[in-house]
Amino acid sequence: MLVRNLLGARYKETPKDCVIASHALMTKGGYMKYMSTGTYSLFAPTKRITAKIEKILREEMDRIGGQEVLFPVVMPASLWEESGRYTSIGSEMARFTDRNGTKMVLGMTHEEAAVHLARDIAASYTDYPFMIYQIQTKFRDEPRARGGLIRVREFTMKDAYSFHTSQEDLEEYYRKCYEAYVRIYKRVGAKNVIAVKSDSGMMGGSVSHEFMLLTDIGEDTLAICSDENCGYRANVEVADCITHNIESEKEELRKIETPNVKTIEGLKHKLGVEPTGMCKAVIYQENISDEYVVVFIRGDLEVNETKLRNYLKTEVHPATGVNEDSGIVAGFTGPVGFNAKAKVVFDRSLKDIESFVCGANEKDFHYVGMNIERDVGDVEYVDVAKAYNGGVCPLCGKPTITLKRGVEVGNIFQLGTKYTKSMNMTYVDSDGTKKNPIMGCYGIGVGRLCATICEEQHDAYGPIWPMPIAPWQVEICCLQSEDERVKGVSDDLYNKLCDEGVEVLYDDRDIRAGAMFADADLFGIPIRVVVSQKNCDKGVAEISYRDKSFKGEVDLKNAVEDIKNRINEIMDRYKV
Amino acid sequence: MLVRNLLGARYKETPKDCVIASHALMTKGGYMKYMSTGTYSLFAPTKRITAKIEKILREEMDRIGGQEVLFPVVMPASLWEESGRYTSIGSEMARFTDRNGTKMVLGMTHEEAAVHLARDIAASYTDYPFMIYQIQTKFRDEPRARGGLIRVREFTMKDAYSFHTSQEDLEEYYRKCYEAYVRIYKRVGAKNVIAVKSDSGMMGGSVSHEFMLLTDIGEDTLAICSDENCGYRANVEVADCITHNIESEKEELRKIETPNVKTIEGLKHKLGVEPTGMCKAVIYQENISDEYVVVFIRGDLEVNETKLRNYLKTEVHPATGVNEDSGIVAGFTGPVGFNAKAKVVFDRSLKDIESFVCGANEKDFHYVGMNIERDVGDVEYVDVAKAYNGGVCPLCGKPTITLKRGVEVGNIFQLGTKYTKSMNMTYVDSDGTKKNPIMGCYGIGVGRLCATICEEQHDAYGPIWPMPIAPWQVEICCLQSEDERVKGVSDDLYNKLCDEGVEVLYDDRDIRAGAMFADADLFGIPIRVVVSQKNCDKGVAEISYRDKSFKGEVDLKNAVEDIKNRINEIMDRYKV
Repeated sequence: MLVRNLLGARYKETPKDCVIASHALMTKGGYMKYMSTGTYSLFAPTKRITAKIEKILREEMDRIGGQEVLFPVVMPASLWEESGRYTSIGSEMARFTDRNGTKMVLGMTHEEAAVHLARDIAASYTDYPFMIYQIQTKFRDEPRARGGLIRVREFTMKDAYSFHTSQEDLEEYYRKCYEAYVRIYKRVGAKNVIAVKSDSGMMGGSVSHEFMLLTDIGEDTLAICSDENCGYRANVEVADCITHNIESEKEELRKIETPNVKTIEGLKHKLGVEPTGMCKAVIYQENISDEYVVVFIRGDLEVNETKLRNYLKTEVHPATGVNEDSGIVAGFTGPVGFNAKAKVVFDRSLKDIESFVCGANEKDFHYVGMNIERDVGDVEYVDVAKAYNGGVCPLCGKPTITLKRGVEVGNIFQLGTKYTKSMNMTYVDSDGTKKNPIMGCYGIGVGRLCATICEEQHDAYGPIWPMPIAPWQVEICCLQSEDERVKGVSDDLYNKLCDEGVEVLYDDRDIRAGAMFADADLFGIPIRVVVSQKNCDKGVAEISYRDKSFKGEVDLKNAVEDIKNRINEIMDRYKV
Repeated sequence: MLVRNLLGARYKETPKDCVIASHALMTKGGYMKYMSTGTYSLFAPTKRITAKIEKILREEMDRIGGQEVLFPVVMPASLWEESGRYTSIGSEMARFTDRNGTKMVLGMTHEEAAVHLARDIAASYTDYPFMIYQIQTKFRDEPRARGGLIRVREFTMKDAYSFHTSQEDLEEYYRKCYEAYVRIYKRVGAKNVIAVKSDSGMMGGSVSHEFMLLTDIGEDTLAICSDENCGYRANVEVADCITHNIESEKEELRKIETPNVKTIEGLKHKLGVEPTGMCKAVIYQENISDEYVVVFIRGDLEVNETKLRNYLKTEVHPATGVNEDSGIVAGFTGPVGFNAKAKVVFDRSLKDIESFVCGANEKDFHYVGMNIERDVGDVEYVDVAKAYNGGVCPLCGKPTITLKRGVEVGNIFQLGTKYTKSMNMTYVDSDGTKKNPIMGCYGIGVGRLCATICEEQHDAYGPIWPMPIAPWQVEICCLQSEDERVKGVSDDLYNKLCDEGVEVLYDDRDIRAGAMFADADLFGIPIRVVVSQKNCDKGVAEISYRDKSFKGEVDLKNAVEDIKNRINEIMDRYKV
């Protein structure tokens, strides 16, 4: 491919709406063009990258026995009514009515379609297990589209669905798929991907893992045990929060006046008590009923809304103002004598502490010396706190939890019978009884993986694409294309490399070397070959790696062979 | 791939909603599953076929300098408002409003997206020409979804867009693309594809061709000159209709009573006059105004609505009943003394005929001896008639027009500046002036091509897939898998062929030979290898071709080599 024939503009200025590196570099490098919130057109280099990722995905899915199929993007709402998700999913699902008045939806995931395809067919236990997958467009009307290709509304996804006759069989396949994912991330060249336990969210099911590429720009927070021998890793959404036992002594309960002191900081300042000695109230409302939910939690901790939601089995949101009729005295809420109209949750962090400062449920008053057992009575403690840096690891018990940020680049779920039961998919087991098969599902977003690798591997000048997914393997920069000899050597090298099946991007434009190299940095091709008058005089070409790990000269006579060897040597690093 | 692991049921009964062979065979062969009107999920064999078609499409598009890109399926309505098609296209376009209240559409074609991607970038004449293409899902809310994958609402399409600075350059590229299409149809194994001149329809532009696979189940009718030296081919929608000159002599105009005779047949019966001697009236209404349009045309001919629409420059439909207030006397309408509120069109077939029978615009009366020049005056004749079997060829002038039916499996359009002008895409030409680039666009529907080839190449028992797109190249039928020796020979052959890169479907199920062969017919794999006790006794395997062109035995020792040679020999037939 000749650069001068390639559609796409490259420029120096960072677009002002780009807050992360991959978004900025892929915009100014001519990889993508914004069309509407969370939708982009992709230029040829990006399409080449995603095609390579897709090829690797197919190979690894086929390797674990997958069959590639294709589901429709547009599905009838009736299918989603069967599973119950037509109503349980909100405005993230795009919906329209077709010319016949039939309600249709755009697929954001395809569990329903997978069950629709397989039911009636896989009717006997002998037909199991099997796995079907597709690589297809999805649309999710995402409220938080951001970061270029990292969180979009329309995206290409590899989604796989496996069907089993026993939990053991699902678990065995789940492990195989887990291992396939590990191979995939290695093969595409992603360096820092870890698997963490995760929340199953709208997918339902019990066990699930997310594969997280660690990067500071990640939206997800992960709780990771820093003890190498332990290996505990979880999305903070589901991570247990275990607190150090704070030493304290029982005191007498005393009500004190605290005029206008409504915050933890204010109380600390006024009373000289650390937040770890306070019992704070965090107020939520249930989405469906607006009923209040008051969470009592240690003053230094935050509530983990995912864990709270999972405990309550209903969606909640932070209270939008507190109605006085409820009996809740905002800023002065505490568990002693609390009798407002609200559900109450006690976080586990409050357990075994003898003495707290807390609100007195009366404007401008707090209690000190509050002891839950003595002053409130028997309560149920629940873990609804966010894990924190230095917290206790639930696996090894050491205070070694560190929080890191990551971008989810894949997920795997054990779904159980959520979909097969609701959609009435059955098979006849060996004992003649009818059963619902057990499902797993496994997703990887192609564009996000591409952008996240760019986020992980770039410098100030452009992406540094790993060889297995680089849009081209080699770029030839012909520095003086007006010089017949230089142009001849470059053309010759280009043609010979192409003949050998090497993927070459060839820049023979009549532009300044600086501009050509700036573009080459944005193309991010692993191996760069520079042909110039000076090099031709010496009978060499200059070879350098985009990641700066090598720079040297090669005799023009051996150039093709040398470059091919380098490609093979680099590709070997990504073998599994 | 083992048949027993392949998801998909095969059965004997033809589903009652299937009226064409490809739909029936692909349904009962486990190729596709109906989800909703015009949407299907595709099983693995179909996905394998379409993947092979897509690979050939990519290779041929790349060969003519195309760059693969990717546009969004979901686009903002604003982009379609720029081109004017948001309003000019009706209910075929699926529309919805997103969570932010933005109007969105599902792409049914991507001219707007192509201009959006390229404008601002291709700013100088030196950036031209270029061609971008994608292979992507489209949704068209088709009122006439039918015939399985032949006319669906959701489909995968290869759509390409080229941009040029001169009409000559477009025409040169258009020819290249035309040739690429010819190569594509040969390479995928379609036998009877011809190019015909076509109507540009909603795409706009002037010159366009459709590639038609000739088959009796086709929805399109083609006018083809049967003189081999001529080569005239056109969609009947745009084909000129040239009539033989009917001999007749001038007569006196006489009004005669024809009680209740309202049809051509009735008149022929009553008066003994051939329809070629009648001037009939066909009544339409304009879609926007309901205004009547009366077409006078020779009694034996039909009106071509596409040509009528193109002449009137507005959409029309056959009149739904005639309002008496209009002055039109239905069944007795004629050009003499016609003064109803209606547009009048005279078809060219009426020209130079001296004497007609026609309606007298009075209930139960007709005229005989009507002469247009004498009795009506000077009229404009327009060609709005449908070409017919035995009609005169507009190219060679012989009465050699024959009508055939075909399915459109591709189209190419010269679009001109319709989109670049309306969407304000400009470049600076060599003389410093700003101009709108000239566009071409080029489409091929992947699923339709697959189904149409099945329609063309099948027998009563199943598809006969051509080797280049067959889901697998070879099927091994192991007839007695319970026999260790037979199973051993089959397994060995399967493993060796797979090792050699041959695509093999392996049926080692413990079922009757008849059932296995019935399934094999539905799989439609070009080469079948049968391993049985009888064959093993002789040390041979039986080889047969799905198209019945070969059947024989091969020594087991040479089987792998022999099969590989056969594959190569067959593949050579599709080389270009």
